[in-house]
Amino acid sequence: MTNDSENNRSGERPISGGYSRREALKLGGLATLGTLLGGGALLGRATPALAQASSAGTLSPANPLDIVIAVYPGGTLLDFAGPSEVFHQLPNTNIRYASLNGGFVTLEYGVEYGKTERLADIDKAGLILVPGGSDLTAPMQPEYQAQIRRLADSAKYVTSVCNGSLVLAATGVLKGKRSACHWAFINKLSEYGAIPVPDRFVEDDNGRFMSGGGITAGIDFALRVAGKLRGQQAAEFAQLVIEYDPAPPYHSGHPRDARPEVIAMVDKELPGASKGLARVPGVR
Amino acid sequence: MTNDSENNRSGERPISGGYSRREALKLGGLATLGTLLGGGALLGRATPALAQASSAGTLSPANPLDIVIAVYPGGTLLDFAGPSEVFHQLPNTNIRYASLNGGFVTLEYGVEYGKTERLADIDKAGLILVPGGSDLTAPMQPEYQAQIRRLADSAKYVTSVCNGSLVLAATGVLKGKRSACHWAFINKLSEYGAIPVPDRFVEDDNGRFMSGGGITAGIDFALRVAGKLRGQQAAEFAQLVIEYDPAPPYHSGHPRDARPEVIAMVDKELPGASKGLARVPGVR
Repeated sequence: MTNDSENNRSGERPISGGYSRREALKLGGLATLGTLLGGGALLGRATPALAQASSAGTLSPANPLDIVIAVYPGGTLLDFAGPSEVFHQLPNTNIRYASLNGGFVTLEYGVEYGKTERLADIDKAGLILVPGGSDLTAPMQPEYQAQIRRLADSAKYVTSVCNGSLVLAATGVLKGKRSACHWAFINKLSEYGAIPVPDRFVEDDNGRFMSGGGITAGIDFALRVAGKLRGQQAAEFAQLVIEYDPAPPYHSGHPRDARPEVIAMVDKELPGASKGLARVPGVR
Repeated sequence: MTNDSENNRSGERPISGGYSRREALKLGGLATLGTLLGGGALLGRATPALAQASSAGTLSPANPLDIVIAVYPGGTLLDFAGPSEVFHQLPNTNIRYASLNGGFVTLEYGVEYGKTERLADIDKAGLILVPGGSDLTAPMQPEYQAQIRRLADSAKYVTSVCNGSLVLAATGVLKGKRSACHWAFINKLSEYGAIPVPDRFVEDDNGRFMSGGGITAGIDFALRVAGKLRGQQAAEFAQLVIEYDPAPPYHSGHPRDARPEVIAMVDKELPGASKGLARVPGVR
């Protein structure tokens, strides 16, 4: 019961899905569903999905795919909480959270999230994911942009969710590439030379570039990424574990379906939203 | 750019959606989408939804509904990251995170989440939400259970997501009540005298008790709660902001739809899952 106290924060090692079960137990005293399901027993099984992963590269329990989630102050938790939950169910996958200065990051609503590695300390990412935020001031700074560009240039997969696509596009890496984005910001992609596509999941260059729409689209995005990286069966396993059997009570998830008065509410708070040109701090 | 450093963790005040925009700016130097949309400008508008909220109680910007999210070590981030994103879009709502000892809590996968208030420091909750986890050892301890029971007894709404329903049921508060739960654990509800209902959203006692299914069901749950608390238009607004227009690439979100070999994968990792009787640490 001392786990939720400050005392438990003595370990200096940042969050990572790559812990062995023993390391996880050491770290937090907990056997996690992630280590039990994704990081542990699954690794020993030769499923078709695993075979596919192996043929796609040299992935193995000892040589997992590094998924780097690039976090920043003002970021939206759900943009990456959905994808990371999916990715944690996959075998041979090491999920790393990184930020400019490492340590804790103050997200939207004052949530403090950690610990993160320093982006500069990460040599290379197998997959880089840039989530969105309500304030893009921090990730639009040259120092952050340079780190994202460096990791994107060498990554096998370059991905974003929500208006994280604007952060990625601003680095120049999406020039001429098709990309998704939160509906309220999507047409700003053009200002950075990317091609806005108003779908929930978008890919380009045979899947090297993959992106999701706004906030909750990260879950659908991640399941598609999971299918590409580890095969359909592994993705279906993840979907079943997270009970992703959506049943929204209203039809209001996109301006295509929402009632005009509801769209007007968003437009009032975020002028330009229904044109895909809402303003967000940090973006001109 | 110093926001994502340890330096920024000097503020001792825990996370709360109730900050004024000025307070939020003070706290993290950020104008958040939450304060802009949910905590700020919306408050001044007399929508039908707001009128409904007012007639249901004495809610106002000065007297918001306190939503207390009870966090614990081993908890699953996405169980409450979905609901909190929805709730942050609602007017007259103050979202508080609390744990037994306050401060940071080490969730599943080693994520450190904070800061939280101490449960004992919270006098009363308008709505209490107990999320699930991969290890229920901590929230099943008598000290934690007593805090949950105390807050549930006086709360207007008593809610849970995923196997957080087992935590709630263990306090005795769900005796004879219908409840949802993650499909892999749902039939364990009976052991605590609750009535398992295998739906994505379940309510009892005219909505005083509301619960969601596993992990991602928290989003559908929260939209339904939003509709009850603030009316359909406010809930539709939240759905549009979070772009909840789900399009899962596979039909594998529930054992009803999943392929037998995928169900078998989960059963292998979590024996008893397909009977709704999977084991989780902390539950006998």
